[in-house]
Amino acid sequence: MNISQEDIEKVLYDLFIKYKFTNEKAKLMASVFTESTLDGVSSHGINRVPLFIEHIEKGVIKINAEAEKIASFGSIERWDGNQGPGIVNATKCTNRAVELAKKHGMGMVALRNTNHWMRGGTYGKQAANANCVSILFTNTKPNMPPWGGKESRIGNNPFVVSIPREKGNVVLDMAMSQFSFGKINDYRLREEKLPYPGGWDENDNLSNDPKKILSKERALPVGYWKGSALSMVLDMLATLLSGGNSTSKISSKDIETEISQVYICVYPEVFNDQGLQQKLIDEIIDFTHDVEPMKKNDKIYYPGERSAQARAKNLKDGIFINESIWNKILLLSK
Amino acid sequence: MNISQEDIEKVLYDLFIKYKFTNEKAKLMASVFTESTLDGVSSHGINRVPLFIEHIEKGVIKINAEAEKIASFGSIERWDGNQGPGIVNATKCTNRAVELAKKHGMGMVALRNTNHWMRGGTYGKQAANANCVSILFTNTKPNMPPWGGKESRIGNNPFVVSIPREKGNVVLDMAMSQFSFGKINDYRLREEKLPYPGGWDENDNLSNDPKKILSKERALPVGYWKGSALSMVLDMLATLLSGGNSTSKISSKDIETEISQVYICVYPEVFNDQGLQQKLIDEIIDFTHDVEPMKKNDKIYYPGERSAQARAKNLKDGIFINESIWNKILLLSK
Repeated sequence: MNISQEDIEKVLYDLFIKYKFTNEKAKLMASVFTESTLDGVSSHGINRVPLFIEHIEKGVIKINAEAEKIASFGSIERWDGNQGPGIVNATKCTNRAVELAKKHGMGMVALRNTNHWMRGGTYGKQAANANCVSILFTNTKPNMPPWGGKESRIGNNPFVVSIPREKGNVVLDMAMSQFSFGKINDYRLREEKLPYPGGWDENDNLSNDPKKILSKERALPVGYWKGSALSMVLDMLATLLSGGNSTSKISSKDIETEISQVYICVYPEVFNDQGLQQKLIDEIIDFTHDVEPMKKNDKIYYPGERSAQARAKNLKDGIFINESIWNKILLLSK
Repeated sequence: MNISQEDIEKVLYDLFIKYKFTNEKAKLMASVFTESTLDGVSSHGINRVPLFIEHIEKGVIKINAEAEKIASFGSIERWDGNQGPGIVNATKCTNRAVELAKKHGMGMVALRNTNHWMRGGTYGKQAANANCVSILFTNTKPNMPPWGGKESRIGNNPFVVSIPREKGNVVLDMAMSQFSFGKINDYRLREEKLPYPGGWDENDNLSNDPKKILSKERALPVGYWKGSALSMVLDMLATLLSGGNSTSKISSKDIETEISQVYICVYPEVFNDQGLQQKLIDEIIDFTHDVEPMKKNDKIYYPGERSAQARAKNLKDGIFINESIWNKILLLSK
């Protein structure tokens, strides 16, 4: 079914107000969940709302908790999320990293004890809209084996890089797993194989059979040993800089919570050549766009281009929402 | 043949002195090339010396050029490498990023017009030895197709993350290609297939046949579309922050030169809990080490662990050097 942006936002706002969030927080979260859906990322937008409410009801997300600064030195700060909602904490910390960047050229906030930020690209866009470059990442519960290991002990630790661009921001938002379990499940539902291996089957063989992968929940890291190593160092950075929980500690909880994140922003306008910078970014995009595709009529994209296209389409045609998700949300709102 | 660390360093020092480098630069470069070889990374150590000399002779590397600061704001600076030797420029910029981090909590140097830094991990180690966390990256000439494209238009853009650790620094040093062309060539020489696809054959099919991949020089990005996107944003960051050349511009040169790099350092000791930080890093390493391996007697490694092991072995048994490379270097030294 198609629902308008206004209606989604209104229903979510009312839902969050019902759950006793402040007006400001309810508005922010309704907007972020709706925007992600509008950008074509329903998996971390509207579809995630019922689970978010479940985590509130289980006490994992503290409604009135506020992230607060606990240490600072020059351009870097350490914050504690106090188990507040991930979206609110992430928005605040991105905003603070932008402020620090505008003051010092670059800034960093390391955040501990926060909750799932939903779509990482949200904060990449936020930084880019404030004319900052950003590098952001989070740790997660374990869902991939470290390279060579049998059991999931490392997280898919989403990693975001964004670059402000007049003709459309560049936003990379990638998890360290080749395919998310959500995507793998979509293939299962369509009874299709993955186009490339996405995890291990129960006999420890790499597989592109969604059913076999889902039976063990061991996702394949991007680039095999390379993504495994990258996942580990992101966990180390987020944990040591925030003084927070590692994937190891998070694994001891029933529900993924009290995770650690890093927000780095750079303000490139201090070099006073924004015109040149924009030209250089466009040069890279033009060079890659201008390549002959391997498959006829295929197209090469820059990171963030497809979600901008999805957004334009959704704004024109309306936003498709899974009916059972929408009904669940309406029920929760009552 | 086995050569001692002292002998390698002495021969390289004399070679660089012969090529009119200052005493200080000859010493530094001899040490860096030797250390990389000692760490088991001969491909970017001793084996790379003849090509380095060739690039000097072709005027691509300027012997007397010095990297200089061209702009700064708070904790970030822009430097121009003036086509000096990559090792000297990279060492200087890492050192400067460390200084900025110790003053501001974190610091960044964006460097343009530099040359190949050889082994990126060198500077990760340098930062870690100065008690800083580092995130470093460089762009390169194009050697991978952007995802879906026929022609190589993106670089394998090595990316380094390092973390100071008492029991052995953590150093991730990964290029964005699944296998380097050097590695692919090693498989070709041994007449073996790659264990996983490493590039495209001439019919645009992914292949694990080194001969077929080498015939077209189109390496596979780590994680397919994901590494392609990551490569692009690293190129964008290095180019826009330094105001330097992108992979697109570098592609117009016969030899890879005047490339762009970024050095970010963070000084986590400002939070005054180094003991806790060390414990947290060890916790992550212990958790991943402690997993049952998929293959019997296999072992899980943290990033940097194997090069530390190679170093220990080489220090004990002597450093194996390819004889023809060594003879080439001796000839160049005459």
